[in-house]
Amino acid sequence: MMVVRPSLSGVLTEQVLGLISDSGLQPGDRLPTTRELAQRFSVTTPTLREALRRLEATGAIEMRHGSGLYVGADIERIVLPNPNMRSMPGGQLLDLLDARILIEPPLAGLAAGRPGAEELRAVLGEAARHLSGQDAELHEANMTFHRVSARLAGNSVLEEVVDSLLSVHAPEQREILRIYDDRRRDYDEHLTILEAIEAGDARAAEELMRAHLIDVKTVVQQRLM
Amino acid sequence: MMVVRPSLSGVLTEQVLGLISDSGLQPGDRLPTTRELAQRFSVTTPTLREALRRLEATGAIEMRHGSGLYVGADIERIVLPNPNMRSMPGGQLLDLLDARILIEPPLAGLAAGRPGAEELRAVLGEAARHLSGQDAELHEANMTFHRVSARLAGNSVLEEVVDSLLSVHAPEQREILRIYDDRRRDYDEHLTILEAIEAGDARAAEELMRAHLIDVKTVVQQRLM
Repeated sequence: MMVVRPSLSGVLTEQVLGLISDSGLQPGDRLPTTRELAQRFSVTTPTLREALRRLEATGAIEMRHGSGLYVGADIERIVLPNPNMRSMPGGQLLDLLDARILIEPPLAGLAAGRPGAEELRAVLGEAARHLSGQDAELHEANMTFHRVSARLAGNSVLEEVVDSLLSVHAPEQREILRIYDDRRRDYDEHLTILEAIEAGDARAAEELMRAHLIDVKTVVQQRLM
Repeated sequence: MMVVRPSLSGVLTEQVLGLISDSGLQPGDRLPTTRELAQRFSVTTPTLREALRRLEATGAIEMRHGSGLYVGADIERIVLPNPNMRSMPGGQLLDLLDARILIEPPLAGLAAGRPGAEELRAVLGEAARHLSGQDAELHEANMTFHRVSARLAGNSVLEEVVDSLLSVHAPEQREILRIYDDRRRDYDEHLTILEAIEAGDARAAEELMRAHLIDVKTVVQQRLM
């Protein structure tokens, strides 16, 4: 775990977070300028910028070049993907897939019969349009399918966990897609999961999601051997 | 999700991460000084410090006052607790507990029969010493019990997820302990879980952990009403 240090930068970070919550600012809302904030907290601009970079790194604010400071979309998240991940050792990737195998199937079950399946169908339509071509777009649609399935279950914390796991292994996922060319199978498996969710069949949705993720793990294991 | 911006600070962050991995530096190892790094990457010290604060905020490095820069313990984590959490709305807290109810019981089941149960017994001994007193120490021992149970299951990613969830709701947990004074019940439930793990009884360990966490959620729900 991270150790909390009472550095000036840490104190300033708390002050900016306090300003955001005391002013009732929401993600996307604009913050005062760097200069105004430095004056308000009686620090130099470089010192303030150190605190702002801490907040930027953890998604609490966005620093848009030439435009200013905004409250970040991730400020109220519980968990964050590590933005510093470079490459993942094989063992860690298999642990990550086992984590997905534990978490995602029950979420697919919870999603069954809840509102929002039409969004999932739209995502799959997007995947269909890229089946015979663009890796990047197909990959994006496939990842979105898993994110939206998790979101439909209605638990914001588990949605963040799934989002974090998907974000961190996106590079490996793209590579799998390129090597194995299993576009059609992925698509077909996603379609059967969608149909179970649309039909409100929780047990089938859960089992199909589990089987699908075990398939993904098998592909990764073969690649690692 | 966080948006990646090609700022100078972002480029520098990548360069420092590259230096760490190219040099084979491990958590706890010392980095060059701020001045040396600024020279190496041809930037001013304030600009370098912005990049270092980004890495510090996400646990990739530690900046120890008067001592220097070290590789951080969290550099290879997949998921991180959001360090900016202030207070948690009730609905989010219940989602968090549902997340724990999904994840922790199967991990207790996996822990059963694997090596390391003696560490868990030592943690419980620590809790026993604080049963009639110190809130902070008892709380710490109780949280450690859940962290170690998750670790014994042997999946590093799920261990990080559980650690992140526990870190973020530590303040609420401490409050529950104070209000409900359910020290003894918590301890007794932890003890039955430990005994199931020691006995290698996966099914009992899983069911007892689930019942325990559902109890915790019930207490929180009563408090929220």
